[in-house]
Amino acid sequence: MPRVPLRHGEGNKEHLTSFGGLAALSLDALSSVAYGPEAIVLVLVAAGTSALRLTVPITLAIAGLLVVLVVSYCQVISVHPDGGGAYAVGKKDLGPTVSLLAAASLVVDYVLTVAVSLAAGAASLASAFPSLGHHILAMCLIGLVLITAVNLWGIAESARVLMLPMVAFLAAIFGVIIVGLVRAHPAIVVGSAQPVHVSEALGTIVILKAFAAGCSALTGIEAIANGVPTFRRPRASRAQHTELMLGALLGAMLIGLAVLIAREHVAPRGGVTVLAQLTAGSFGTGWAYYATNIAVTVVLALAANTSFGGLPVLMSLLSTDDRLPHLFGLRAERPVYRYGVVALAVLAAVLLLATGAATHRLIPLYAIGVFIGFTISQSGLVRHWHGRRSRRWRLRAALNGTGAVLTATAAVVFLASKFTSGAWVVVLTVPALMLLFSRIQSYYRAVGLELDLGRHPNRPLPAESLVIVPVGGISKLTEHALHAALSLGDDVVAVSVHPEAAQSAAFRAEWDRWNPGVRLDTLNSPHRSLVHPIVDYVRRAQQDDRQVAVLIPEVQPRRWRYRILQNQRGLLLATVLRASTDAVICTIPYRLTTR
Amino acid sequence: MPRVPLRHGEGNKEHLTSFGGLAALSLDALSSVAYGPEAIVLVLVAAGTSALRLTVPITLAIAGLLVVLVVSYCQVISVHPDGGGAYAVGKKDLGPTVSLLAAASLVVDYVLTVAVSLAAGAASLASAFPSLGHHILAMCLIGLVLITAVNLWGIAESARVLMLPMVAFLAAIFGVIIVGLVRAHPAIVVGSAQPVHVSEALGTIVILKAFAAGCSALTGIEAIANGVPTFRRPRASRAQHTELMLGALLGAMLIGLAVLIAREHVAPRGGVTVLAQLTAGSFGTGWAYYATNIAVTVVLALAANTSFGGLPVLMSLLSTDDRLPHLFGLRAERPVYRYGVVALAVLAAVLLLATGAATHRLIPLYAIGVFIGFTISQSGLVRHWHGRRSRRWRLRAALNGTGAVLTATAAVVFLASKFTSGAWVVVLTVPALMLLFSRIQSYYRAVGLELDLGRHPNRPLPAESLVIVPVGGISKLTEHALHAALSLGDDVVAVSVHPEAAQSAAFRAEWDRWNPGVRLDTLNSPHRSLVHPIVDYVRRAQQDDRQVAVLIPEVQPRRWRYRILQNQRGLLLATVLRASTDAVICTIPYRLTTR
Repeated sequence: MPRVPLRHGEGNKEHLTSFGGLAALSLDALSSVAYGPEAIVLVLVAAGTSALRLTVPITLAIAGLLVVLVVSYCQVISVHPDGGGAYAVGKKDLGPTVSLLAAASLVVDYVLTVAVSLAAGAASLASAFPSLGHHILAMCLIGLVLITAVNLWGIAESARVLMLPMVAFLAAIFGVIIVGLVRAHPAIVVGSAQPVHVSEALGTIVILKAFAAGCSALTGIEAIANGVPTFRRPRASRAQHTELMLGALLGAMLIGLAVLIAREHVAPRGGVTVLAQLTAGSFGTGWAYYATNIAVTVVLALAANTSFGGLPVLMSLLSTDDRLPHLFGLRAERPVYRYGVVALAVLAAVLLLATGAATHRLIPLYAIGVFIGFTISQSGLVRHWHGRRSRRWRLRAALNGTGAVLTATAAVVFLASKFTSGAWVVVLTVPALMLLFSRIQSYYRAVGLELDLGRHPNRPLPAESLVIVPVGGISKLTEHALHAALSLGDDVVAVSVHPEAAQSAAFRAEWDRWNPGVRLDTLNSPHRSLVHPIVDYVRRAQQDDRQVAVLIPEVQPRRWRYRILQNQRGLLLATVLRASTDAVICTIPYRLTTR
Repeated sequence: MPRVPLRHGEGNKEHLTSFGGLAALSLDALSSVAYGPEAIVLVLVAAGTSALRLTVPITLAIAGLLVVLVVSYCQVISVHPDGGGAYAVGKKDLGPTVSLLAAASLVVDYVLTVAVSLAAGAASLASAFPSLGHHILAMCLIGLVLITAVNLWGIAESARVLMLPMVAFLAAIFGVIIVGLVRAHPAIVVGSAQPVHVSEALGTIVILKAFAAGCSALTGIEAIANGVPTFRRPRASRAQHTELMLGALLGAMLIGLAVLIAREHVAPRGGVTVLAQLTAGSFGTGWAYYATNIAVTVVLALAANTSFGGLPVLMSLLSTDDRLPHLFGLRAERPVYRYGVVALAVLAAVLLLATGAATHRLIPLYAIGVFIGFTISQSGLVRHWHGRRSRRWRLRAALNGTGAVLTATAAVVFLASKFTSGAWVVVLTVPALMLLFSRIQSYYRAVGLELDLGRHPNRPLPAESLVIVPVGGISKLTEHALHAALSLGDDVVAVSVHPEAAQSAAFRAEWDRWNPGVRLDTLNSPHRSLVHPIVDYVRRAQQDDRQVAVLIPEVQPRRWRYRILQNQRGLLLATVLRASTDAVICTIPYRLTTR
């Protein structure tokens, strides 16, 4: 069984430079400029096109929050150099319930990252190729299948491979901004103008909603703090360097795009994203337009892909804390890893189908979870500074406290304003996941108590052993099984089941002619049941103090498709014996060479 | 695990009287009067309503064939008192290829019996309740789900329970015939008249097609010969008695209904079956009409149910002959029985969906297989008489030879006339099944040769044994596993896997403090893989001549839903070890009492 390729942070640790870290850990954050500014425009336009002039001030406020978050995460990095993340911070500083909340919202967010990135990527591609406009959902599902296949197959992403699309993406976006600012007028206005239905008055509520919606551009900036162990030493300072780079790049892009939006009076237009409109305004609709849209699509698809690396790591952390089945601790085992990949893909597909792959319907759900995580990280830091009372702790606590209040406000605004249009899903899912994790944890705790986990049980002593070998005929397989049984047991008995006494007698005569040196017990079963007579026999054998084992030989055909022809009876017998007796169940393979 | 209830012929053998045998084994045959006469009418009307006058002569010809078949099956019963059936007859007298053909057509027929009976039953119910007319397919699927559920749950049908519906059915049909013959004119004409499209000239082809279609009324008369062992002694004569009763009843019903059809000028009418038209003609549309239609529906549903009893028996016979996985020999085991029930239900559902539950589209497919079976049985008898050359063998052989030619003709006519409208499915399926059975048989034969099945292998000798116990911690579970390992092995070693050397050292220190008297080997796995280090360890241990066993403790939670939380790692380990080493894999259950 081949090994699952390494993900970030495994095996080859300490390999990321600051710039490599940006490619490996920040594509999700950087690519959110494809939907964040658009989310602001969509909210504001509901209060009339004149409201769009608020885009720049609102973006500046978001950039302010970005500064707070970046500084805050730099502190998280120095406080938790082993990889922070809301889950670890919450567990350490804020207690089990908060860490459960963090875990649940992270799980929801991994699913939503996949869905949002695919939906935004499809919208970007459809802006370049309008004939794809009616197939957004289909494109998302095809993209999802491709990403899932790549992950099932197991391609290790490397920072070097991700570098090229990231550089292309940054060059394209900054190209749009710089060329756009230099031009007096937009080169081309693309997309069909839509009638504006003014449904709300321009007031605090709309501004708050636009602010909260635009905050979706901040999703993903926590990833660097989660991934500190993947940096080259000195890890913390390299990671902080990357976090600052990310903040600077993201802030500059957001503000630049907002200024362009205001200058070019960009409004939602049918079938063309806001970013694509700005691109056309700067570059026209020649090759540069196509190249930019494709770069955006590729980076969004890669952002979707990061969840497939991240969720297994989180599930493994949760299983270490007894909050998910221990199985998920073995994330390097391919079958376990595949469970996770397929589960994530199915959930993302459900979300895409439920929302019709509309980015603006997914973003509120997405942002709620992300902002819960931000709030938890910042609150944890406040608690941390308060507990340590180191130098300048009040200033630090005030900074993180402000961040916590702002991000909590954004989460509440999302939740309240979008409750009926989908946010209730998050409100149901997050507590349900928390309950699940906590039920699993209390189950494992009870089992641990029952098993005296961590104490020293009695010293195990050997007992006499009896090995029972069910036989159906005399062959090399029988010899193979009896050899193993004689090696393992102090006493060995072969058992055969026959419909009638005559057949039993005939088989006994044949057995005696062979004379294998093992005694035979024959059982009669007029109902042609194999399992029950043997189960009863094993139960009777267990009545003394001997250790009873049942040894079942298994023919292993060379080809998989012959599996159904072999061992099914043994499998059935083993299953029933396991459920209804305390015997040791042993299976011994006999490898066929036939065909 | 509760036992599957007994089917006919198991356990309580020799319990059927002649009349009981009619109820237990002939519902399928008797109920075919619900679709056989209708099939004739449907073919003839294509040559104009005047062609309908041929209904009586064609039915008389079919009754003649019925006589030949009944006499022939009486002979099958005396020649094969252990239960004949086309499969057994073919295997004994006509060689392996013919018996494969018989087996394949029987499998196809079991599926089609379910589909045809349900479709005809739904049509009968819709005749009584016209509002159900647009929901024939849905009614069939609901009926299928109910029958499947009953069979999964496992209700044993008894001849006594079946007696009542059979008597009601016979009373109703003979009531329709007698009252109808006494009346001068039909009481009421139901159903809406349909325009007749004359698409064929009345000639030999149409008459042959009508004959072949009407022969579908003969399906099921082989069941008594298959079930001889279920009769009370003297079995053969009781079974022959039942066969004769069936022939007389079926013949009388077919001729009586044909005469009524001719007298009342019955033609296909929208939404009402031919039998329902005759019922209304005799009884009017009062309670007797509803009662008759319901009795017909119930008997058809019970006829569908008989396949669920019959297919497992056939599969068990095939598995005894190495033509199906040996697993199916264990038909008394509930999981095996359930596979068969679910597979049959799924295939019948596919057929119903593909044909829209239209009886007239299913009947040709059905009849082909049945008539292949008839032909094989009769040809086998010809060969039998020829081989024995007993008294009057020429007469007997001539009788069966005639039957074989007639039934073969019917099969060929069905096949040719319905090839493009569905019979090609049978033409593909039957050889595909034959190929499958024969591939399975040659696989088992090759394996038997490799295993020296039936010869005496060497006498097995014991070897030294080493039992490896993977441990993840120290608990009562560890003690339990080590106790069993010490009982079974000459040498025992515990193995633990840790991500880093420090953890290994800590666990070793803990182990030494416990001092269980078993040595510990620690393995390091920086990739968090549990399976590979242990597989490598086992492979190394197998390099000497010792018998190596790996003992994996399994926590057995009290509730099923906790299964996912336990043992998944052990299961994964066992699966990989089984596939990639020759070690004996032992599992030992540890039953939790927690919750």
